[in-house]
Amino acid sequence: MQKPSIPKGTRDFSPVEMAKRNYIFNTIRDVYHLYGYQQIETPAMENLSTLMGKYGEEGDKLLFKILNSGDFLSGVTDDELTERNTARLASILCEKGLRYDLTVPFARYVVQHRNEISFPFKRYQIQPVWRADRPQKGRYREFYQCDGDVVGSDSLMNEVELIQIMDEVFRRFGIRVAIKMNNRKILTGIAEIIGEAEKIVDITVAIDKLDKIGLEKVNEELRLKGLSEQAIEQLQPIILLSGTNQEKVASLKTILAASETGVKGVEELQYILEKIDKTPLQAELELDLTLARGLNYYTGAIFEVKALDIQIGSITGGGRYDNLTGVFGMPGVSGVGISFGADRIFDVLNQLELYPENALLTTQLLFVNFGEKEQDWLLPIIKQVRMAGIRTELYPEAVKMKKQMSYANTKNIPYVAIVGEEELEKQQINFKNMLSGEQHTLSVTELIEYFSGKDFVTGE
Amino acid sequence: MQKPSIPKGTRDFSPVEMAKRNYIFNTIRDVYHLYGYQQIETPAMENLSTLMGKYGEEGDKLLFKILNSGDFLSGVTDDELTERNTARLASILCEKGLRYDLTVPFARYVVQHRNEISFPFKRYQIQPVWRADRPQKGRYREFYQCDGDVVGSDSLMNEVELIQIMDEVFRRFGIRVAIKMNNRKILTGIAEIIGEAEKIVDITVAIDKLDKIGLEKVNEELRLKGLSEQAIEQLQPIILLSGTNQEKVASLKTILAASETGVKGVEELQYILEKIDKTPLQAELELDLTLARGLNYYTGAIFEVKALDIQIGSITGGGRYDNLTGVFGMPGVSGVGISFGADRIFDVLNQLELYPENALLTTQLLFVNFGEKEQDWLLPIIKQVRMAGIRTELYPEAVKMKKQMSYANTKNIPYVAIVGEEELEKQQINFKNMLSGEQHTLSVTELIEYFSGKDFVTGE
Repeated sequence: MQKPSIPKGTRDFSPVEMAKRNYIFNTIRDVYHLYGYQQIETPAMENLSTLMGKYGEEGDKLLFKILNSGDFLSGVTDDELTERNTARLASILCEKGLRYDLTVPFARYVVQHRNEISFPFKRYQIQPVWRADRPQKGRYREFYQCDGDVVGSDSLMNEVELIQIMDEVFRRFGIRVAIKMNNRKILTGIAEIIGEAEKIVDITVAIDKLDKIGLEKVNEELRLKGLSEQAIEQLQPIILLSGTNQEKVASLKTILAASETGVKGVEELQYILEKIDKTPLQAELELDLTLARGLNYYTGAIFEVKALDIQIGSITGGGRYDNLTGVFGMPGVSGVGISFGADRIFDVLNQLELYPENALLTTQLLFVNFGEKEQDWLLPIIKQVRMAGIRTELYPEAVKMKKQMSYANTKNIPYVAIVGEEELEKQQINFKNMLSGEQHTLSVTELIEYFSGKDFVTGE
Repeated sequence: MQKPSIPKGTRDFSPVEMAKRNYIFNTIRDVYHLYGYQQIETPAMENLSTLMGKYGEEGDKLLFKILNSGDFLSGVTDDELTERNTARLASILCEKGLRYDLTVPFARYVVQHRNEISFPFKRYQIQPVWRADRPQKGRYREFYQCDGDVVGSDSLMNEVELIQIMDEVFRRFGIRVAIKMNNRKILTGIAEIIGEAEKIVDITVAIDKLDKIGLEKVNEELRLKGLSEQAIEQLQPIILLSGTNQEKVASLKTILAASETGVKGVEELQYILEKIDKTPLQAELELDLTLARGLNYYTGAIFEVKALDIQIGSITGGGRYDNLTGVFGMPGVSGVGISFGADRIFDVLNQLELYPENALLTTQLLFVNFGEKEQDWLLPIIKQVRMAGIRTELYPEAVKMKKQMSYANTKNIPYVAIVGEEELEKQQINFKNMLSGEQHTLSVTELIEYFSGKDFVTGE
């Protein structure tokens, strides 16, 4: 018999991993709720017509396609089969595919339900996505995304709120972060000013290396990419832009004065910074001109969150896009959103050991099973204890004490209660804090009292 | 441009539907936790070798299969293609399939992780499953299951606990239910006694109709199914079994005395009933010999929950199976479990209007946006209010009052706060309960005080 296994790039999540993941999802969910975001869910399977062509040619190849049910060959001739045009055949054999991200299904949702939605629509969505990527360390074929977006409002207050949301989420996690911000319009402005609009990606990539390789090498790279000497000259103040966010904004205003789009971008940035200043963040908020993620679809603000105490890629990102739903026939809907990288946050919390122990706790109190008589006496008591909200187990069999204690130990149960003949006679429960060794013998009422409002980890 | 749509048999869930579903899932989750069950998750995709052959021939056909990535035709000859043996071809074109239920992936999980698990293993799992069934009212191609199982313990205390869990879940929902219980060993015993072992399904189906069609017709049906007159004769006391659970148990003891298995089943039943009697349930617990669900794999207790105040199929079911993991090479692991039918529970709660309004509430307080000046004054205030845990929104733009009020209305926001020039001058916030019309003008601290511990629906 074959050893059971799961498809490569997928994962099982054990109870401890689930507790950690739930802590992450619940924290993100709570903060979204605090800001009035509402949850939606979409099906795992979408029509391939919804998904194809939305993620570029490479993306199309990474879609998991679902074989049509029944006679999946009925629409195909023998010639088509033996021709072996796999892309074409796949489109006949498969009508459905697995969700590749949460953005396209959300756009589809907004258009399909436009008449039921009241705009601005603040939605969040926490669901798995699937990509037929080559699996490698930290890259999975099934992973969760935690997206929050506002559509139907182009107010910059939405950007302000999303920054607050990111700040609050990482404050709750205890992860020190820098929130980096840029604006697509500024990048466009720069390209306009130096007359190299089509080289904007090369430029940002090169500028990004300043810290590592120095100004000389950056300019060299720009030359290699085919930028004119004049353009490089004009770029120097931008590359060397430094100081506080306010100072950078001031310089950019001068530098980009000749570009209408550029000026607009700086104004947007300034507005957001001003509003954020009214409610100081825990995180650093940092204007970063090298931030160019999602350059293809973002049209305004661009966000990225980096953890300060650990080397890892960005753990959250987002930005504004001006035409999310146009591809589904509903033009003119502006949106702005962010996506928390649950897997990377999981790794950061693990490495920095930031999980609150209480979040990992399952059962709080285990009753050892000494036999039929004691068990029968305990049944109504355990019910009472549970009714008081204490997560309680009775070991299901009167096996050896050692085995029951080892169960409590493996499951990390902080309190173990013992009711043997003696306790039964006195109608009392003896229980022990497994960490401190502290013991008590109490009546049921006293026990419930004892545990009420108790922190089960610290015992206080 | 095509109107966007989703695959038939699948669903989008709107914010209101999600709030209801989360209420259901959270309630079930809380009760599982109270009993020490731990959550796991398994991947949506399993290897088809894990899934095939586990759900019968019909089940194999209902599996959603995922086309292999890359050149999916590489392993197929032209002859094989034009031969059009779809079942064979599917097994070459597809290595993976979508999870069909949570039981087989759980069995696979237990075997794969046997060395990390401490038994008895009490796990719950709330995840979607997919079936290529013909969609119809109330039957979907993607739906959630909420399974709880204990494996690695044959103690009947697990059955007792699962009954308590079902009872507690429906108590919390406010759904009046009957929990029906049977035992596979009793059914085997009956079949042994009357010498018609292979007709056990026909027999239970016929008995089940007693209430509707009467004894004469039941016997007629049994005859039609080929039961001997003698067998039907012997069945009479079983069909007519009535009275309390205790009376039924007493009768069965006599009737099944000659069948060792039957006697064992009655003893199991009696044990469970005795233990349950020590902590009375809210629900009716009812011995029902016609309960024959999952006859193929259950080996002991069989459970089913029926709602009393509404006509609908069973809303929860389960039972004991003695060889869950044998098919994956790990024999001798007994388990018992239940599965809550989330979709039907959703319908019952809807029809009986049992959702607590608070569970459906998202934003509690909306600040109307009067313009830049008022907004700027509000920013730190709103932050304070949120820090106090009040789910708060600021309308992102200073649009017409009517539009902002309509937003509050559609989103069912119970309190709306107004800070215009006057309030700003007095440094106060005017807010209104949208249901009662009651208004207050308070300072920030007073407002937070006012809302602390408040029920946002009743306003009390």
